[in-house]
Amino acid sequence: MPKLRVHNITVSLDGYAAGPNQRLEHPLGEGFEEMHDWMFAAMRDHADGRTGVDVDHVARSEENIGATIMGRNMFGPHRGPWQDESWKGWWGANPPYHNDVFVHTHHLRPSVPMEGGTTFHFTDEPVETVLARAFEAADGKDVRIGGGAATVQQYLRAGLIDELHLAVFPKLLGSGERLLDNLGDGVDGYRVSELVSSPAVTHAVLVRR
Amino acid sequence: MPKLRVHNITVSLDGYAAGPNQRLEHPLGEGFEEMHDWMFAAMRDHADGRTGVDVDHVARSEENIGATIMGRNMFGPHRGPWQDESWKGWWGANPPYHNDVFVHTHHLRPSVPMEGGTTFHFTDEPVETVLARAFEAADGKDVRIGGGAATVQQYLRAGLIDELHLAVFPKLLGSGERLLDNLGDGVDGYRVSELVSSPAVTHAVLVRR
Ligand SMILES: NC(=O)c1ccc[n+]([C@@H]2O[C@H](COP(=O)([O-])OP(=O)(O)OC[C@H]3O[C@@H](n4cnc5c(N)ncnc54)[C@H](OP(=O)(O)O)[C@@H]3O)[C@@H](O)[C@H]2O)c1
Ligand SMILES: NC(=O)c1ccc[n+]([C@@H]2O[C@H](COP(=O)([O-])OP(=O)(O)OC[C@H]3O[C@@H](n4cnc5c(N)ncnc54)[C@H](OP(=O)(O)O)[C@@H]3O)[C@@H](O)[C@H]2O)c1
Repeated sequence: MPKLRVHNITVSLDGYAAGPNQRLEHPLGEGFEEMHDWMFAAMRDHADGRTGVDVDHVARSEENIGATIMGRNMFGPHRGPWQDESWKGWWGANPPYHNDVFVHTHHLRPSVPMEGGTTFHFTDEPVETVLARAFEAADGKDVRIGGGAATVQQYLRAGLIDELHLAVFPKLLGSGERLLDNLGDGVDGYRVSELVSSPAVTHAVLVRR
Repeated sequence: MPKLRVHNITVSLDGYAAGPNQRLEHPLGEGFEEMHDWMFAAMRDHADGRTGVDVDHVARSEENIGATIMGRNMFGPHRGPWQDESWKGWWGANPPYHNDVFVHTHHLRPSVPMEGGTTFHFTDEPVETVLARAFEAADGKDVRIGGGAATVQQYLRAGLIDELHLAVFPKLLGSGERLLDNLGDGVDGYRVSELVSSPAVTHAVLVRR
């Protein structure tokens, strides 16, 4: 059975997955940039054929993904109605997804095909519907949620996520978007299957019971 | 300079230091009991002369403490005015403190001397005042805050804690008392100096910048 997976979500020790005041100059919110560096370093090391705790997690995240889901705040810094449709994501002409990307938003736009096989679709449908579309697009492979906090939370609360990998970064952020919050009964469905620290972060993997 | 230290505070992966519905049968709140077992196991191992990541942390926590501070919810399950003064803490006739213990509460009572050198004092004074009294009682040694979440938070927010050791337990609790919350600018004063996982928990040590 194809799975719904989430990988490489960095959270501060106090639980934030994004800093306050997200904007063009601070895609991850203020104070968050350095916290996500472990992942970029691990991606470089992976490309160079190195191994290690961080690299292994990044390597896993790239395996067998056929479609992507994300929230509108991860797609861009805009809030409210689109002023125009020139924004096509943070990732340039050839985004690193290479598959269909479903962007949750209340502000619909036509789909945006990009180079390299990525197409952004905008949807205001419920998570169950979007997930079904994503599984269909993935054609037997797994679906990955890219982020951010609000989106992962909705799927977790609904018990739809099969595997969630967090990287806890040792910093107190104090404010921002909390990840593991408002989960309701959703938490009962999960157990932590791994907990291991690299020099940079602590990796925790949540799986369904 | 004597320090204000906090040790062995277990928090769930979603940041709770106590479960919901604290009461006589659930001193730590519902669902929390198993999460604190690592500490009791480490205390036993320490007494038996064993070593290890968890044991080392527990050993450190016992060194050079001259006075203790705690919140009223850690002292007992009562809320509101005392019905009588028969409650003398969870710890029996000879509590494991062996020094002056200052209990923050709005509901004052006369001090309670116990066997083994522990005396419980009840105070509604501000944290700065209570800390000064505790340092005086500690007579050159360090002061330790026992818990719970609300009390540690106040001292952290005020930037008064020199060292805070957390043990992150790999479980989602979903509700309860969050520790690293409402810290305001208090967070700016701290950095994480250690992050290491044992098979049971991830130890994080926060120190003042
Ligand atoms: N820590 C990490 O590793 C990591 C990973 C990925 C992303 N991030 C960061 O996380 C931040 C974004 O997270 P976030 O929690 O602010 O937001 P998000 O989950 O990316 O997006 C939330 C927004 O998506 C739309 N949306 C979500 N669910 C919807 C639904 N069911 N129906 C319709 N619209 C829906 C709404 O926007 P509208 O109402 O405006 O349409 C909502 O405000 C960014 O800073 C990003 O860089 C961090
Ligand atoms: N996770 C761990 O390792 C760990 C460690 C220790 C304790 N715990 C648990 O934590 C829980 C207690 O934590 P908590 O956050 O609920 O409460 P707490 O910090 O123990 O106590 C809070 C209460 O203390 C009184 N208080 C605190 N500050 C005060 C002030 N400045 N002035 C006057 N009164 C003040 C108030 O009670 P009144 O208004 O009623 O007087 C307040 O409701 C317990 O379940 C305990 O077992 C867990």
